[in-house]
Amino acid sequence: MYKVDLNCDMGESFGLYELGNDEEMMQYITSANIACGFHAGDPHVIRKTVELAKKYDVGIGAHPGFPDLLGFGRRYMTCTPSEIKDYVMYQVGALREFCSAANVSIQHCKPHGALFMKAAEDKALARAILETLHEMDPQMIIFALNQSELLEEAIKMGVPVAKEVYSDREHTESGSIVLTRRGTVISDYEAMAQRVVRMVKEEKVITHDGKDASIKAETICIHGDTPGASILAKKIVEALKESGIEIVPIKKMIF
Amino acid sequence: MYKVDLNCDMGESFGLYELGNDEEMMQYITSANIACGFHAGDPHVIRKTVELAKKYDVGIGAHPGFPDLLGFGRRYMTCTPSEIKDYVMYQVGALREFCSAANVSIQHCKPHGALFMKAAEDKALARAILETLHEMDPQMIIFALNQSELLEEAIKMGVPVAKEVYSDREHTESGSIVLTRRGTVISDYEAMAQRVVRMVKEEKVITHDGKDASIKAETICIHGDTPGASILAKKIVEALKESGIEIVPIKKMIF
Amino acid sequence: MYKVDLNCDMGESFGLYELGNDEEMMQYITSANIACGFHAGDPHVIRKTVELAKKYDVGIGAHPGFPDLLGFGRRYMTCTPSEIKDYVMYQVGALREFCSAANVSIQHCKPHGALFMKAAEDKALARAILETLHEMDPQMIIFALNQSELLEEAIKMGVPVAKEVYSDREHTESGSIVLTRRGTVISDYEAMAQRVVRMVKEEKVITHDGKDASIKAETICIHGDTPGASILAKKIVEALKESGIEIVPIKKMIF
Amino acid sequence: MYKVDLNCDMGESFGLYELGNDEEMMQYITSANIACGFHAGDPHVIRKTVELAKKYDVGIGAHPGFPDLLGFGRRYMTCTPSEIKDYVMYQVGALREFCSAANVSIQHCKPHGALFMKAAEDKALARAILETLHEMDPQMIIFALNQSELLEEAIKMGVPVAKEVYSDREHTESGSIVLTRRGTVISDYEAMAQRVVRMVKEEKVITHDGKDASIKAETICIHGDTPGASILAKKIVEALKESGIEIVPIKKMIF
Repeated sequence: MYKVDLNCDMGESFGLYELGNDEEMMQYITSANIACGFHAGDPHVIRKTVELAKKYDVGIGAHPGFPDLLGFGRRYMTCTPSEIKDYVMYQVGALREFCSAANVSIQHCKPHGALFMKAAEDKALARAILETLHEMDPQMIIFALNQSELLEEAIKMGVPVAKEVYSDREHTESGSIVLTRRGTVISDYEAMAQRVVRMVKEEKVITHDGKDASIKAETICIHGDTPGASILAKKIVEALKESGIEIVPIKKMIF
Repeated sequence: MYKVDLNCDMGESFGLYELGNDEEMMQYITSANIACGFHAGDPHVIRKTVELAKKYDVGIGAHPGFPDLLGFGRRYMTCTPSEIKDYVMYQVGALREFCSAANVSIQHCKPHGALFMKAAEDKALARAILETLHEMDPQMIIFALNQSELLEEAIKMGVPVAKEVYSDREHTESGSIVLTRRGTVISDYEAMAQRVVRMVKEEKVITHDGKDASIKAETICIHGDTPGASILAKKIVEALKESGIEIVPIKKMIF
Repeated sequence: MYKVDLNCDMGESFGLYELGNDEEMMQYITSANIACGFHAGDPHVIRKTVELAKKYDVGIGAHPGFPDLLGFGRRYMTCTPSEIKDYVMYQVGALREFCSAANVSIQHCKPHGALFMKAAEDKALARAILETLHEMDPQMIIFALNQSELLEEAIKMGVPVAKEVYSDREHTESGSIVLTRRGTVISDYEAMAQRVVRMVKEEKVITHDGKDASIKAETICIHGDTPGASILAKKIVEALKESGIEIVPIKKMIF
Repeated sequence: MYKVDLNCDMGESFGLYELGNDEEMMQYITSANIACGFHAGDPHVIRKTVELAKKYDVGIGAHPGFPDLLGFGRRYMTCTPSEIKDYVMYQVGALREFCSAANVSIQHCKPHGALFMKAAEDKALARAILETLHEMDPQMIIFALNQSELLEEAIKMGVPVAKEVYSDREHTESGSIVLTRRGTVISDYEAMAQRVVRMVKEEKVITHDGKDASIKAETICIHGDTPGASILAKKIVEALKESGIEIVPIKKMIF
């Protein structure tokens, strides 16, 4: 039987600033990537988000980013691998304490924004992240783009890894994503859901430039910060179920 | 036989900015209070400081502060107890991850600066800190001033607590400290060392206003950010040894 | 003829985080308090907000706060008067550069949140702010609560000052405000608008505890961060006009 | 007669953290690049540094950087030109207010660290900075490396520009600098001073890889954050004077 995990970035509010509809999205997903306070999130938001994930029995992931709240971690910073190791350990460690307090554990890690995109193409950065995760917990699953350096290095190092695709972004032939959002209107949701189904079952996707490319979907990302995200999530869940695809947290697929 | 612990604030550098002579001080002390990134310290500094403490077999303590790097955590902020709980958990959690990576554990916690001084007089704040520490690790020892709310509440809650005195600050009759530094010159060091010895053996100290007050010294703080700190530390260590006082990490005194 | 100024906090978004409906509110108000990057706002937001105020011909005010983005400047920090002077100068200076670029000038200054509330009762803090504003521009108008230290000191020093009341907060007998929001429902808007009219014309207000107190309203604050703020603003504008009260930027009332 | 300006980065302390020997260096230099609070510096440090520059009659320059205190502005961040414009305006505006308060004006601008190095090779970034400076003050002089995009664009746009060389860094054939410091020992100072003299008089320098390259020195940078900086500064001043080279603030050379 086909299986897939649904993930969403969570806990990206900060102080008075609210972002995303975390509780609504929790009802559809199986894995939550929780911001750790560098690009977004704060201690109070982390506590609340961990509790929310627990309430909905959603797998918890760390979502570490560059130390750039002003740029929401979307700007690449020329940090050294050694700096990245320490930044990842600090952020995941802080999150882990809140998880321990809630008596849950960290299932996975998905680097955020520019850190994720750069780790897809920069082997040294990918290794820095992977070595840190491996040092912290050899069972922690890393999310990686198809054909990325992060994926290749994880396999080499024996770090558990899940191939990630996007429900609301266009893909390239090499398995990466195109960052500019296309003009999504409500009527697109059904098409997006069917594209997700095809990625899971046929391991194929039509790329942003019209090619039919091979792709493997072990976890599907849905972005929670756009209006309509929960409608998309609902559509995807329905389409997956109708197609006989089971939606499970990534740890149940990997281990 | 008399026993006492020597502690010092550590890991208070930030990025390019260096503060204190951590490696020098490590040679004299038995417990290190490591800054956690809010009032001082950064992920790289934390890693280095944990490794340093391990190298010198010094007990590791968390040193959480207000989120105020600009003011070095020395300014009181009217945070709610709930905010404080989350700030403490975040900071101690981040530190704990570096400790796990170095295969050492956290021995104690000493709140920093304005957080420490306010917790001495504000019961709600004291409880917020203590509840968080207790939730994280019931064996974690809290450092508290004599006669403080932090001390009283720790005793009530069954949180292990160590009574702290200062080698380089004047005390008040109520066991608190006077923040203005007096004009310390080299020749004072011997007097300071003898004052420390008297606090340990006779449980007495001459206060800033000339009274002879009762005080209990289980751990002695030496500040590392003044020139001459290591000379003072050396003097204190010598004076304690000459007086037959054993210097041990606080966990060996409490447990 | 009666005259009054309407003001609103503006430019409190930060990076990806959006707060308030600035463009909508600009259509009703005559003075905008623009955040300067310490408690909220960032360089890009400042530029946009200055341009927006210019577009709607709204008087521009600086809205400096404590350096506490995490707490949105709502937590008092025990800064020294000297620190406050430098923080105010830095923030107002940064804003002023964007004003110069847009060929407009700063009309007034309203300290934000905890800085404003503390300046109402702390003479040294009030003077620190006033001295800095006076040093920068002797024509800059300060907004102050009735009966506050900030008001008293401004009068003594000859700093132009406007007495501020609130459309959406309860007042105390001493002219201050009660920070907890009452449960405002749509049907309250008319009552709030009438209360504003009464403050302007009769110089009277029913306080949070039911007393009829004297109050002087030269500028009326409307908070923009609650749903329905623009409806309230519209109601107030209508009620003022119907009562024959002219709505003008504060500089036209003071000078 | 030969003329040259001597510049040094200044005001890079932050809160409790001290960096550089500003007052000592002020006695040798003619232009100070003052950090503006993003990569280093804070409001209090800015005030003090402006007053210090005024006291020693040193030309004041803005020293804006990336918003990265943790990395001291030495890490490139992929900001858009539009973001850079706003960041520069904010920082220079804040500094300008302190200058106005001290009754001095801003003479020049030298972007800091990664912002400076990137502006040397990235035309869009160079233009973003130049357009902002030009908008603020058409007389503000920009410091630029020989053969850099920043230099070329400044010339095209008519922004006053000064060619900068380094006393304590190696140069490349293209006029850039090599960031790794070579092992400078005291005995090198005389050689460095003579190299500076040669750059000014002969417009030649031996590059890091042993070539004899053409270079133009209108302003010479001395870094103040290494021990011995003031000795080097003194040597350079002596060598320049002995060679008949007058040391003057850059504005007296350009205008």
